[in-house]
Amino acid sequence: MAFIDIPSSTQEAHKLTLIPGPIEFTDAVLAANAYPAQAHTGPDFVAVFQSALKNTRKLFKSTDPDAQPLVISASGTLGWEIVGSNFLTENERVLLLSTGFFSDAFADCLKVFTDRVDVLPAPLGDVVSFSKVEDALKKAVDDKEPYAVITITHVDTSSGVLMDVEKYAELVKRVSPTTLIIVDGVCSVAVETLEFDKWGLDYVLTASQKGVDVPPGLSISFASKRALEKAKTVKPRTYYSNLQKWIPIMKAYESGAGAYFATPPVQLIHALDVSLKEIVPDLDARIAKNAVVAEKLRSNLDSIGIKCLAKPGVGAHGVSGYYFPESINGPAFLKSVGARGIQLATGIYKGIKDDYFRIGHMGVSALGEGRRDLEICFEVIQEALKENGYSS
Amino acid sequence: MAFIDIPSSTQEAHKLTLIPGPIEFTDAVLAANAYPAQAHTGPDFVAVFQSALKNTRKLFKSTDPDAQPLVISASGTLGWEIVGSNFLTENERVLLLSTGFFSDAFADCLKVFTDRVDVLPAPLGDVVSFSKVEDALKKAVDDKEPYAVITITHVDTSSGVLMDVEKYAELVKRVSPTTLIIVDGVCSVAVETLEFDKWGLDYVLTASQKGVDVPPGLSISFASKRALEKAKTVKPRTYYSNLQKWIPIMKAYESGAGAYFATPPVQLIHALDVSLKEIVPDLDARIAKNAVVAEKLRSNLDSIGIKCLAKPGVGAHGVSGYYFPESINGPAFLKSVGARGIQLATGIYKGIKDDYFRIGHMGVSALGEGRRDLEICFEVIQEALKENGYSS
Repeated sequence: MAFIDIPSSTQEAHKLTLIPGPIEFTDAVLAANAYPAQAHTGPDFVAVFQSALKNTRKLFKSTDPDAQPLVISASGTLGWEIVGSNFLTENERVLLLSTGFFSDAFADCLKVFTDRVDVLPAPLGDVVSFSKVEDALKKAVDDKEPYAVITITHVDTSSGVLMDVEKYAELVKRVSPTTLIIVDGVCSVAVETLEFDKWGLDYVLTASQKGVDVPPGLSISFASKRALEKAKTVKPRTYYSNLQKWIPIMKAYESGAGAYFATPPVQLIHALDVSLKEIVPDLDARIAKNAVVAEKLRSNLDSIGIKCLAKPGVGAHGVSGYYFPESINGPAFLKSVGARGIQLATGIYKGIKDDYFRIGHMGVSALGEGRRDLEICFEVIQEALKENGYSS
Repeated sequence: MAFIDIPSSTQEAHKLTLIPGPIEFTDAVLAANAYPAQAHTGPDFVAVFQSALKNTRKLFKSTDPDAQPLVISASGTLGWEIVGSNFLTENERVLLLSTGFFSDAFADCLKVFTDRVDVLPAPLGDVVSFSKVEDALKKAVDDKEPYAVITITHVDTSSGVLMDVEKYAELVKRVSPTTLIIVDGVCSVAVETLEFDKWGLDYVLTASQKGVDVPPGLSISFASKRALEKAKTVKPRTYYSNLQKWIPIMKAYESGAGAYFATPPVQLIHALDVSLKEIVPDLDARIAKNAVVAEKLRSNLDSIGIKCLAKPGVGAHGVSGYYFPESINGPAFLKSVGARGIQLATGIYKGIKDDYFRIGHMGVSALGEGRRDLEICFEVIQEALKENGYSS
């Protein structure tokens, strides 16, 4: 057997990528992404897609045979459009809980499909007020116009705020039971605890390049029976994100048969299959370990006076925002970090984007056997701060 | 520097994939698709995307700085939706020239955006009547309801019929000059002659896994200044395929700056950059050679009584359909071919899908230095026919 030599992710020229996605990938995942050509409806590839879809169910902690995994060639953004074009009619109402930039972008997307999007924003670094959500849901029910959809951004990648999805879901079930519960899990799936069946969720969307630890290019999502029934009643307003087109395809592949609507991204699905085989059997332990790693980093940074954007108790475990100390020039500091081989992310939260930076701490960087990426990150941050004249 | 060992595309277990996409990829392209993680807005990746976008202009033979290349994470299918959601209002008319399954699917997509899609079908294996197109265009102009859009499927992957885009484009310019000229180039770009500027085209869409020779997962397209001006007047009806979102992003990357709307598929764009660097400098010679290779295969098969679906003179150079001889059981024959290590494609043209098979003959299989994939294919077809009792 011949081999292609490709640079490993451990090569020196490669900057350790600790942004909140794309994150670092294992060599096994990268190798799978270089799998040679295969017929997209042939049995060899069908077996791979079947395996990936079955494990996608487990990733979302669902055993409901009537719920549906969806793996589509697109950025995670397509998941938002799936919500707008399949679960909403033009006159229906949305309650959107916003904890930052990405929640607001989700609102922009939904406004293409309905004018009736009510945004409930959280204070900076905090979660959305539980009682305000309750009031809004109740009022809509009292007005005989209950929300068709509520959206909860589990972790907004801009703020690193973790929303208690279980608690909001309980509230919705109690106060406005007809409302579909939609979760943006882009920065939470495979990182934070998420129980699709147990919490009674209706649609959770994510992307490949975060906790799932696969190169970007896959929209990965999961729909409940109730969401699928709603979708059947909605006139399709898009083609590429029309679930009526995709569901038969996903069902075919999962049952071991090829089917065609649009050519699947064969290599990315190989990579997904390899990654899910690593993640799924060990999901709970990985999530627990990721929390420990995140808390450790946060307390390390706190100990040198670097403060987290998310308030104590609501910090996410896959991404955190940290304020630049006042005496520090942000871009110069990030450049010093970069010169030491680590790529961190700039801020993106409206109004304060120049005041903080972000670290991604999920996937192989947080969990890989023998890897100490985040310890190295802390050391490098200390060196870069010192270089820029900061002393804690 | 460490290396990952990945199986080369020459490994024995790998079936030579001669379907009309995904096609075989070079080892260099596969290795690029396994490039380690990079920040999607960082300078290292921006330089790669910039290079790929600049070469995308050359791929479409355009030097117009006001025209726009678009490289988006999606199947090629998204290009159809871009047409529907950006270049058409709900009341506008489309004239769609159909040469098979994929043209008809394009019509299905456009019907999501307007009810006024007129389909002009070609006879089986032939092109759409030039005079019928002229009549339809003239009548619409006379009725003061000229078509907003005409779509021409350059090569329909189901039939292997090659449409003379230049000739239809001339006709449109003469008879109905306000009509935007849209070309589905999924199975033609980098295989057939296509002159965006010279022919006055408005939008050409393709996908990565055909002539561009990159794993599936990229929608690649090119829009004229005129098409972009029209798009500005159309109320966006989707989010993910809204050009107003994508154009600033593409302009930024092409100018050497990062920008964000949705995470780009970093690894696939590395692969695209590698492939375009191979294709673009040699584009005309490659297209000429691809035609010779296709004609040779066709005449070889003809010499043993295997007849092409496309009529003489209108056969495409990247894909061909061939009828099973009457005495042959199609699935058994394809199985025999598969057992000899070659994957061919089944038929998909409505009404005759079980009567023929398809061969993809583009990219590295047709053009690779020292490769004789299509000669091997012809030998294997002869053996498989013999095994199944056929004698010419």
